[in-house]
Amino acid sequence: MFAEIITIGDEILIGQTVDTNSAWMAQNLNRMGVELIQSRSVSDKEASIIKALDSVDTQSQLILITGGLGPTRDDITKRVLSEYFGASLVRNQEVLEKIEDYFSQRGRQILESNRRQADLPDKATILPNPLGTASGMWFEKGDKIYVSMPGVPYEMKGLMTNEVLPRIKERFDLPKIYYRTLMTEGIGESFLAEIIQDWESSLTDKGISIAYLPSPGVVKIRLGAKGNDEAEIKEKVDFEIQQLYKLIPSYIFGENDISMPEAISPKLKKSGKTISTAESCTGGYLAHLITTIPGSSDYFKGSVIAYSNEVKMAQLEVKKADLDANGAVSEAVIRQMAEGARKHLQTDLALATSGVAGPDGGSDEKPVGTVWIALAAKEGVYAKKYTFEKNRSRNIRRASLAALSLVRRYLDGQLELT
Amino acid sequence: MFAEIITIGDEILIGQTVDTNSAWMAQNLNRMGVELIQSRSVSDKEASIIKALDSVDTQSQLILITGGLGPTRDDITKRVLSEYFGASLVRNQEVLEKIEDYFSQRGRQILESNRRQADLPDKATILPNPLGTASGMWFEKGDKIYVSMPGVPYEMKGLMTNEVLPRIKERFDLPKIYYRTLMTEGIGESFLAEIIQDWESSLTDKGISIAYLPSPGVVKIRLGAKGNDEAEIKEKVDFEIQQLYKLIPSYIFGENDISMPEAISPKLKKSGKTISTAESCTGGYLAHLITTIPGSSDYFKGSVIAYSNEVKMAQLEVKKADLDANGAVSEAVIRQMAEGARKHLQTDLALATSGVAGPDGGSDEKPVGTVWIALAAKEGVYAKKYTFEKNRSRNIRRASLAALSLVRRYLDGQLELT
Repeated sequence: MFAEIITIGDEILIGQTVDTNSAWMAQNLNRMGVELIQSRSVSDKEASIIKALDSVDTQSQLILITGGLGPTRDDITKRVLSEYFGASLVRNQEVLEKIEDYFSQRGRQILESNRRQADLPDKATILPNPLGTASGMWFEKGDKIYVSMPGVPYEMKGLMTNEVLPRIKERFDLPKIYYRTLMTEGIGESFLAEIIQDWESSLTDKGISIAYLPSPGVVKIRLGAKGNDEAEIKEKVDFEIQQLYKLIPSYIFGENDISMPEAISPKLKKSGKTISTAESCTGGYLAHLITTIPGSSDYFKGSVIAYSNEVKMAQLEVKKADLDANGAVSEAVIRQMAEGARKHLQTDLALATSGVAGPDGGSDEKPVGTVWIALAAKEGVYAKKYTFEKNRSRNIRRASLAALSLVRRYLDGQLELT
Repeated sequence: MFAEIITIGDEILIGQTVDTNSAWMAQNLNRMGVELIQSRSVSDKEASIIKALDSVDTQSQLILITGGLGPTRDDITKRVLSEYFGASLVRNQEVLEKIEDYFSQRGRQILESNRRQADLPDKATILPNPLGTASGMWFEKGDKIYVSMPGVPYEMKGLMTNEVLPRIKERFDLPKIYYRTLMTEGIGESFLAEIIQDWESSLTDKGISIAYLPSPGVVKIRLGAKGNDEAEIKEKVDFEIQQLYKLIPSYIFGENDISMPEAISPKLKKSGKTISTAESCTGGYLAHLITTIPGSSDYFKGSVIAYSNEVKMAQLEVKKADLDANGAVSEAVIRQMAEGARKHLQTDLALATSGVAGPDGGSDEKPVGTVWIALAAKEGVYAKKYTFEKNRSRNIRRASLAALSLVRRYLDGQLELT
């Protein structure tokens, strides 16, 4: 089965917004065995929208449309689609009540333009959007289904996950596709490829595809197979995943797009240990990553973000003599920061980061990208110096992930503290 | 003059790669006065490429094509384009030498597939690509120009900057385009539209376009005009921007895609005041936003992330009696958190956040999305209760932006502390 995407919005055509929605939709269609044959961005002018609808590929059975459903005047998708499919806009009481609730819950005044979002085409199936005020709309014409969704990424994702994908699955007889993704960290893509190259070259003959998906600090390895016998393709992929676990055990932190903080969350809960952070160069990002996880308050108690040396001394008992002698980016200081957080925030474990995030502050001895990271526990401290990149935000991210990696390796018994 | 983009590559259609090239090209075309009317991603199959070429919009005079120029078997763009334009592939000695140099400089062995990248269509103008081994190709047919470039972002950018854009500028008599964007916060899109609706309705007659670009906590308003007289359109847009400054002065925090932390950075530097944060529900994200800015160490000293009540009491002197009586999400506690941070981290200003980020922990009295935020200064404390959303990560982001908003408003003299 074939699908295509039409993204409506001038903000994309003038380059103000990078279209991340299409990649997300593409991934989710692909996993279900729906082949995306085209993805287009068009202007939010009536003529452009109609031209896009008129030139839909004859093969496409599903056309996913995003954008242009807001309450303001430049949002014309709903009107244009209604006219295109010969529908009339009718005020939907149920949707109106939800919009009114949405506003009253937030203590915000409702405007007529907001109420008009409840005017919906009578020929469409309305898809409820609990995350916003623009409903999804499902039109059918000939052999084709057209689904219109808001362009706000999390609203679109909610509608796709809860409404669109389940309906597609039910409606069409899709081929079986099975993917499994391993998440690795602590090793670069080319080193990884070198370790597993013999195993990798055997995959094609077995009908298994492999993809490396690198991002800063993390490389995903995805194995996939397609076929009619669900059990067979699953068994085949699962077998090769087990081989990977044997080949690179210490680099794997989880599966299926799990994030590092998600991966360590159950491990920390199971260990019964609490954790805190003492952050200099990561400036709170490490604590933020940990607290993205609901329920992280079970193990995360707090942090001291010690950006200045005064805070390092006053809140973490870092010694002035060591700051003077070695600077804040040093083994002596990082050990004291980790121990200080552990003591003052009264946790079992404490992570500390101190480095030169950039763009300024680098030296010959400590260039931009130099970061010390430590983990303190009852048994002692593990401290290590890393050399990351020239880019500030990538350094902050990579340092935070490297710190989380220490927790994972400590809880897995891979780390020796002294 | 109108243009369109065709991106060739299955990695985009299966969602493995987010297409950032198109936004970059769009921005650069737009700045030059070239209007992008469509952007498409198609599969790297021959039939898909030909279909895309056949369905180019009749209005388009420039078709920018990226991808499919690598040395591997799935890279077929060059062959397909050559056949489409009736050209023959001829080995280009000059390009061959550069490819051979490229490999020898990197100490890598050259393969026949790499040499074949010097086989180029005789009907195209070859655009040199010093950053890689795939040349750009410039075809002309009828009134249309087709430019093929590699999909590797930095190679494409090099070719666009050094070859394509200068040639377009020389070839076409382009209109002048002028945009200016105001960044607002503290008000929703529809309320904003209501305040400025009379003014907004006068814009069309003046030949000025307006767009609202909302993201969590921030709404951008972009005004634009097009014409032949650069000074005239600039004056026209600048005048209306001044009207907006008069209509909604307290909501504007900057221009041209500046972020909130960027916007407050020079204000804080100028004020000479230092700042710290005491964070519960934002879990370090507020400190992270502040420290995304290079040089933030001039004013940001540090934070206490007080996720647990123990840390709130021990590090910020929050009183147990108030925690017991009102809970952590309360005015009494948020005031003490802000004051505690100001005192212990020895800063002029301190921000504090405490709320129910979700998904759990909500109650009838304090549902998910309830957040108290405070700013403490020498003169006293400003504390306010907010009601955000049901989504954890959006609550964290919006609470952090709302906290930064307090700093902006305080430094602008808009906030009364008691």
